[in-house]
Amino acid sequence: MGETNGNGTALRELSQDECLRLISPGGVGRVAFNGSHGPTILPVNYQVAGGAIVFRTRAGGAMDDDLRTGIENLEIKIAFEVDEIDENRREGWSVLVQGPIHHVTDDELAGLTGLQVEPWAGGTREQYVRITPQRITGRRIQSL
Amino acid sequence: MGETNGNGTALRELSQDECLRLISPGGVGRVAFNGSHGPTILPVNYQVAGGAIVFRTRAGGAMDDDLRTGIENLEIKIAFEVDEIDENRREGWSVLVQGPIHHVTDDELAGLTGLQVEPWAGGTREQYVRITPQRITGRRIQSL
Repeated sequence: MGETNGNGTALRELSQDECLRLISPGGVGRVAFNGSHGPTILPVNYQVAGGAIVFRTRAGGAMDDDLRTGIENLEIKIAFEVDEIDENRREGWSVLVQGPIHHVTDDELAGLTGLQVEPWAGGTREQYVRITPQRITGRRIQSL
Repeated sequence: MGETNGNGTALRELSQDECLRLISPGGVGRVAFNGSHGPTILPVNYQVAGGAIVFRTRAGGAMDDDLRTGIENLEIKIAFEVDEIDENRREGWSVLVQGPIHHVTDDELAGLTGLQVEPWAGGTREQYVRITPQRITGRRIQSL
């Protein structure tokens, strides 16, 4: 379904398949959750593996600690977003994944084929986490 | 303050002044808030004006409607993030602004010098909003 904005751009909702295709190469995404100072956004390097969004929390100060504490204490639902936007051409797409976040256990990690398991730095402070998508939505904005 | 991760990168917290300098040119940022389907992230075109983050909500489907409804019904606190990340070099920076979001009134709009006021498309569906920063944090990751 398309919608024309009148300012020279058209907005189109993306199907779930299109969204999955766009985010499947992995790269940089942004995760949002409720931290100790309110809503928080953190950029992360992610991969898609086993139908889930997988990334590492890294030793990186208060924001990361917030996320880790949240995951350890309760099952929290978070948002994960990937986009590719050309500011000059006013074109691009964004995909939003919403769902619960969990620690990835060592057994699960072994089963995630294709995951680039880099050496963990800092010992216990590195942890893989996984977002199980409950809702995947996206949209594309194109110049007319 | 620097921290070495051991995986070839160093992380440094940025001062508030550095953060403000990095985000001052405007461009594409991401806003996070609690929508009707849980935490939500939405890319927006923003500018910095009068010490605030200013952007338009645009006619763009459920996510935007969520944000607009939130702003109209209560004073919500949101997160706003800008980053510039080089995936290949594993370097970059991110800035996080947290604070309440408000509608910008016509009088306020007139007082925001330097704001690029483009023609509003779609009549009543376009609205300028403003985030008043309560907390500005950021960090830079550099290869060693």
